[in-house]
Amino acid sequence: MHHTLLTYHFGSRPGLLRAVLLEARRRDNLVIAETGDELGFAALCGAVWNFYSDPAHEDRTHAFFHLVGLAVYERDAFQELVVDIDGLTHLLEAVALRDGATAADARRQSIIATACLRGLLLQRLLSPTAEVDAAAERFITSLAASGGGSHTL
Amino acid sequence: MHHTLLTYHFGSRPGLLRAVLLEARRRDNLVIAETGDELGFAALCGAVWNFYSDPAHEDRTHAFFHLVGLAVYERDAFQELVVDIDGLTHLLEAVALRDGATAADARRQSIIATACLRGLLLQRLLSPTAEVDAAAERFITSLAASGGGSHTL
Repeated sequence: MHHTLLTYHFGSRPGLLRAVLLEARRRDNLVIAETGDELGFAALCGAVWNFYSDPAHEDRTHAFFHLVGLAVYERDAFQELVVDIDGLTHLLEAVALRDGATAADARRQSIIATACLRGLLLQRLLSPTAEVDAAAERFITSLAASGGGSHTL
Repeated sequence: MHHTLLTYHFGSRPGLLRAVLLEARRRDNLVIAETGDELGFAALCGAVWNFYSDPAHEDRTHAFFHLVGLAVYERDAFQELVVDIDGLTHLLEAVALRDGATAADARRQSIIATACLRGLLLQRLLSPTAEVDAAAERFITSLAASGGGSHTL
């Protein structure tokens, strides 16, 4: 299909990028969720980090932050993206509950972990250094040390 | 000064936005650094959160994530922004060192804290709920509980 036709179909280039990203993320989350069937909270966070910090999936992180940057000033056009960004948090929340966390704890832990992993991916994207990877490793280890996320961070 | 003249001077609207944001951030960091003279690592993270989650400073967060979104695909044009985003991390690092952390620990703790606060601000921007504020409070409390950042998270 010609690019101009695709753009016409999706209304705009950001619209096209969003559709591609949403579909990629839907499949990514399925892969990660499948991994999560066997993992605790901390290990799942590790799997999420490994997945998105893999150069093979760099396009996801690029597209994600680009769309987020547009969504800031065009919230209506990107409502679907905004709703979608909670997908990963819900995945982590379910695992934290399975690990024995209370509902409130599971929610907060998953918001914190998603925010931290997202912030680290952003840092890695803009200013990639070994220190960012070391920080991510440390963050994930600290989750494991606190009992897989069932206590405090 | 007329907006068109400003745009001419700064080369582009993103260039103008960047210049305005850099100057605002420079001053913000001075305010936060001054607060930090009396605070430990965890309390300083709390001050950073309070500053940027304040509706009065919402424009900073908006402009920051918008520019980041552009920088993803135009890295050269936004090199200065990319360099600048490490300013807050360095501020936190200095306080972690003063709190007694080793150089490597101080670096990692400050990368993690910056990433997490940035991710939480992004979450709050796109999908503002009381749960995000509760998660931020919990994250900052967990830093304090671990000895102001001198041990693990």
